[in-house]
Amino acid sequence: MVNFFDKSKNLEDKKNIAKIGAAHVKDGMTIGLGSGTTMAYFVEAVAERIKDEKLNVQFIPASKFIEKIAYDYKLKLVSIDQINEIDCAVDGADRIINKKILIKGGGGSLFREKKILLNAKNCLILADESKFTDIIDDFIVPVEIVPFGFTKTVRAIEEMGGYCFIRKNKEKILVTDNQNYIVDVKFSNVNDLVRVHKKLKLINGVVETGIFYNLEFEFITSSEKEW
Amino acid sequence: MVNFFDKSKNLEDKKNIAKIGAAHVKDGMTIGLGSGTTMAYFVEAVAERIKDEKLNVQFIPASKFIEKIAYDYKLKLVSIDQINEIDCAVDGADRIINKKILIKGGGGSLFREKKILLNAKNCLILADESKFTDIIDDFIVPVEIVPFGFTKTVRAIEEMGGYCFIRKNKEKILVTDNQNYIVDVKFSNVNDLVRVHKKLKLINGVVETGIFYNLEFEFITSSEKEW
Repeated sequence: MVNFFDKSKNLEDKKNIAKIGAAHVKDGMTIGLGSGTTMAYFVEAVAERIKDEKLNVQFIPASKFIEKIAYDYKLKLVSIDQINEIDCAVDGADRIINKKILIKGGGGSLFREKKILLNAKNCLILADESKFTDIIDDFIVPVEIVPFGFTKTVRAIEEMGGYCFIRKNKEKILVTDNQNYIVDVKFSNVNDLVRVHKKLKLINGVVETGIFYNLEFEFITSSEKEW
Repeated sequence: MVNFFDKSKNLEDKKNIAKIGAAHVKDGMTIGLGSGTTMAYFVEAVAERIKDEKLNVQFIPASKFIEKIAYDYKLKLVSIDQINEIDCAVDGADRIINKKILIKGGGGSLFREKKILLNAKNCLILADESKFTDIIDDFIVPVEIVPFGFTKTVRAIEEMGGYCFIRKNKEKILVTDNQNYIVDVKFSNVNDLVRVHKKLKLINGVVETGIFYNLEFEFITSSEKEW
């Protein structure tokens, strides 16, 4: 899956971050698995630890993409609706603003990723330095919308000042794991992301936005710098 | 489909209201069709007018249920995403509070019904007297939620004070036309329905609520009373 939000070129960086992330996993944990390439490396790294150390760990995948990879690595998978508590959610991010707000959804799994992060006791974000920023005036927010009446939902989003691009895959509208569409919404001259999230979420047709806030994040980065 | 919200016993009343509603349809119109039994009678009545008066009218159905009936009556159907403007949306309601707010969703089609009403130039509500009320302290709001993580969405709704019942059909969880679930949320001692809607809609997992407001409704009732 092509992730056009992903600006990191260094695969070694991602593998390294994934390995540090995997070291956080403890025996008996239920782990939420975000989607994306860094998470694929995380699965690889954690599978090795489970095998070597004979750990008993179960995983909740946030997408069919990461579920397939986790399945191939023989990780024990459970449904989010079968368990009461998620000990730790591990995920990536497209942009990290002031270390407080994430913009996610480049891979199209924002709804399930948010559901998992919101219900996890700890949120571990694996991200290289290129993802961190303090500037938020111009940005793109992926938004999951219901297919029925999507043209009218897009109209409502554009009325609030966002410029919409329906996400496609090979000329066809991309359908999420929840059978919805993704619209990438470009905003300019905006500085209150929480307000943008709320305005978007209240629109009829909007299922969820890629703005993640009100969560305690722990960041893992390849850099030596303290975040 | 059994609609446990429907308290009206008088089918003749419904047929009569449907007929008055059908008289509002004009040649060349695009009409949004809500769901429910009154709407089934509306389809019957409007089909007769179209045939007799050779009208050119097209319809946007809000559910597979009403689409099937409209199809059987040979009405011309169009998709909401193919048209720019809906001239008139015709729909029912479970409860009508102060003639300003509707509670809908007893039939499970609240999302599509709301999408159509929000995008119609006129909203015609067919409802007998039993639906009108001024009291809103105890009520049930149908809410459409995403299946993934529905137990966590229910937990979040219960944290805001609603008591949740997942809608079922013959022991199986009911799936909406949008592939979602319906949860019927019971609230007590609440008087600001708009606030309840906003709090619910902002919850991750909530797609839409059955609280309809900020719309100009025209009511058609069998009663002689002026609403």
